[in-house]
Amino acid sequence: MTNNETIVALATPNGTGAIGIIRLSGPEAITIANSVFKGKDLTKQASHTIHFGSITDGEVILDEVLVSLFVAPRSYTRENVVEISCHGSAYIIESIIKLLIKKGARSAKAGEFTLRAFLNGQLDLSQAEAVADLIASNSKASQQVALNQLRGGFSTQLQTLRDQLVQFASLIELELDFAEEDVEFANRDQLKTLILQINRVITSLISSFELGNAIKQGVNTVIAGRPNAGKSTLLNALLNEERAIVSHIPGTTRDTIEEVLNINGINFRLIDTAGIREATDAIEQIGVQRTMEKISQSALLIYVFDAASITAEELEQDVANLKKPSITMLLVANKIDLLNPDDEAVFRTSGLPITIGTDFRTTKVSAKEKRHIDELKQDIYHAAIKDQLTGDETLVTNIRHLEALQKTEEALVRVLNGMDTVTSDFLSMDIKQALHYLGEITGAVTTDDLLENIFSKFCIGK
Amino acid sequence: MTNNETIVALATPNGTGAIGIIRLSGPEAITIANSVFKGKDLTKQASHTIHFGSITDGEVILDEVLVSLFVAPRSYTRENVVEISCHGSAYIIESIIKLLIKKGARSAKAGEFTLRAFLNGQLDLSQAEAVADLIASNSKASQQVALNQLRGGFSTQLQTLRDQLVQFASLIELELDFAEEDVEFANRDQLKTLILQINRVITSLISSFELGNAIKQGVNTVIAGRPNAGKSTLLNALLNEERAIVSHIPGTTRDTIEEVLNINGINFRLIDTAGIREATDAIEQIGVQRTMEKISQSALLIYVFDAASITAEELEQDVANLKKPSITMLLVANKIDLLNPDDEAVFRTSGLPITIGTDFRTTKVSAKEKRHIDELKQDIYHAAIKDQLTGDETLVTNIRHLEALQKTEEALVRVLNGMDTVTSDFLSMDIKQALHYLGEITGAVTTDDLLENIFSKFCIGK
Repeated sequence: MTNNETIVALATPNGTGAIGIIRLSGPEAITIANSVFKGKDLTKQASHTIHFGSITDGEVILDEVLVSLFVAPRSYTRENVVEISCHGSAYIIESIIKLLIKKGARSAKAGEFTLRAFLNGQLDLSQAEAVADLIASNSKASQQVALNQLRGGFSTQLQTLRDQLVQFASLIELELDFAEEDVEFANRDQLKTLILQINRVITSLISSFELGNAIKQGVNTVIAGRPNAGKSTLLNALLNEERAIVSHIPGTTRDTIEEVLNINGINFRLIDTAGIREATDAIEQIGVQRTMEKISQSALLIYVFDAASITAEELEQDVANLKKPSITMLLVANKIDLLNPDDEAVFRTSGLPITIGTDFRTTKVSAKEKRHIDELKQDIYHAAIKDQLTGDETLVTNIRHLEALQKTEEALVRVLNGMDTVTSDFLSMDIKQALHYLGEITGAVTTDDLLENIFSKFCIGK
Repeated sequence: MTNNETIVALATPNGTGAIGIIRLSGPEAITIANSVFKGKDLTKQASHTIHFGSITDGEVILDEVLVSLFVAPRSYTRENVVEISCHGSAYIIESIIKLLIKKGARSAKAGEFTLRAFLNGQLDLSQAEAVADLIASNSKASQQVALNQLRGGFSTQLQTLRDQLVQFASLIELELDFAEEDVEFANRDQLKTLILQINRVITSLISSFELGNAIKQGVNTVIAGRPNAGKSTLLNALLNEERAIVSHIPGTTRDTIEEVLNINGINFRLIDTAGIREATDAIEQIGVQRTMEKISQSALLIYVFDAASITAEELEQDVANLKKPSITMLLVANKIDLLNPDDEAVFRTSGLPITIGTDFRTTKVSAKEKRHIDELKQDIYHAAIKDQLTGDETLVTNIRHLEALQKTEEALVRVLNGMDTVTSDFLSMDIKQALHYLGEITGAVTTDDLLENIFSKFCIGK
């Protein structure tokens, strides 16, 4: 991996638009741009300035452009960076990139600009990953979490703790040098306190992953119930409220369509299912089985029932069939328009208990008349996001970070357990392992494979 | 149409990319941007400078961005312009645009930035139209023609001639004021010379339209011939040579697929057709009829025949059936691999005349063995583009310009014809009409309808 090369790529999306931005980064970025630019001498201009001129290939003018200059180290990559803003024709963009390559640049690989920003110390690794998350963010919550991570909240916290642990590690290393003299340079009580402190942070970060992942990926939510419970009407009632931010995502299986519903900035991926009933033939059994599979892959189950016709026995039976320890279940009593308008009496008129145990929330709605739909949305939100989000949380959203944190935790538990029993060299080994995994998150410890794996998932031009 | 409002739109294509550019233009562009920007005070910065900071909605940070400033009149629209370069997430882009609208900007209409550039005198109308052509350009020739028009070559020429005509018009107006005294302020011989000169330019511009349009839209080219003449093999041979710049365009009819072949920077839209033979039944007749329709809509017809088997009579019959005055026809003798390798003898060995009259070029190829395919390409190019393109031509590519030029020509012919016979007031009227139509091209004469019609075809953000 050498930074001596100057890389080039389109930084804006493919497609026709008013403008396209071609980005160059590397030691020769400015001289290469200057060699095809007719206008001011770019090599003599200040950083953070913009210049109008044309890109020419010999005598042929390719386009009239604006060129933005960022002189190292005052750029995203900390290298010389040039951004060429040209007319947004795919033909023109391709011609200019080809010309720049002819003049000595090479095509950037996926994520290579951000990789350089990391290698040059502009961003740590978790910040670099946050850039990709930010670009992919599609809701207020996912954008805030990514931005929070980009701004370093996450890794600063870990870095401080890691630095303290490094001190202990070196003190214990010192003990190894004086092993025969049986001295303790590292105060075991202080070390214990520090490790407990680190573990509290790590445990809280680990437990934040469920929420962080829900925010980043959206919450998989299945709507299930008996036939004619009003599932589709309910889905429509939920979606019609915020039609503007609803989008259609083709399902991964042929027979389901996912709809995305945004509640308080969190995306819920609603999956409608076929009605559940006792299968009378083989084909219907397959349908029910599919529904059960969808449910088992979801984080939240909205069970809808017809409050006007279901019996207490049927309801209890369904709940017993559907409930799983890993899935939050929300009961929705639909068709309350068919019942006594007195809310209190809803369940009594249909002979139902008001709640099915205390494990489940029950929301009463009329999907048809769009009654209590807003309340239902808030119930859906709170069923998934148990605690209120303040927006300042440090949340783990990245499975790589989760795994590193879990491994750190394991190593630290070993340190704690062995502190009074094992020798300094074992202690030192476990602390080093914890340091290693913590370092992987921020990139203090990296391997080529790790970097390759992370940055290959970026888009070209970032 | 007021320019007091500040407009905002995404200037880069929709979709996910490394960055997105949001553009503001109008008197409040900088103050609105400053009201949501955390960083330097943007209102105190110089034009053509770039500033790092974050976009914040109250306490909530939406993104970290780079802001480029263009202070009026040093901008594309000659108004204050701000370009915000943010992370390329659709969610972030939408959030920032919404925030800017909340702070006083409004959504830009299609082409509104360029409309303002025109209204503020930055571009004339034909230059503004060239911006859209440039964005849509998809070949070297179409990009060069659009760029040439953007750079004003076209309209400067017309403007000079129009200015001279205006002088004559005012002299003739003066004659009207002194009508009773029978004086001639406008020298009729000079007027005649000027009009002839203008008409020469206009006639040449009108006749450039065919080529200009071919360059802009591509040349519709039909490949026709008897069954088994080797049409598909020829199509593949033509396309395989430059696979990289070949693209698939779904046909407008169900049964044809167009392929685009680029020769010397010109796009040829190749349309393969069913084999032509005397139809024996009704369904086959429909197929032949479709082929004939495709041919009648094309500019260039490549007629392919099997040189090893066709008879002179069949060939002459096909040519007679297919030739149309408006379509250039190119004969391709295929399968020369089956003939005597002596090129000179190709046609004699199969008993054919060497040329079918002098109207048609005949190219001899072997599609199967890919022999003479490059020569055929050059023949295709020259059959369509009769004269060599130097790259500096002033070409009319816009049907609106063509119509205005034709109307100008008609009015000028009336001036010439009436010069010695009609009174000054009629002469004046015809000159004014010519001026009107000339003015429509550059935008010296505009109506709201005309502008609406032109700019509504632009994309949003341009």
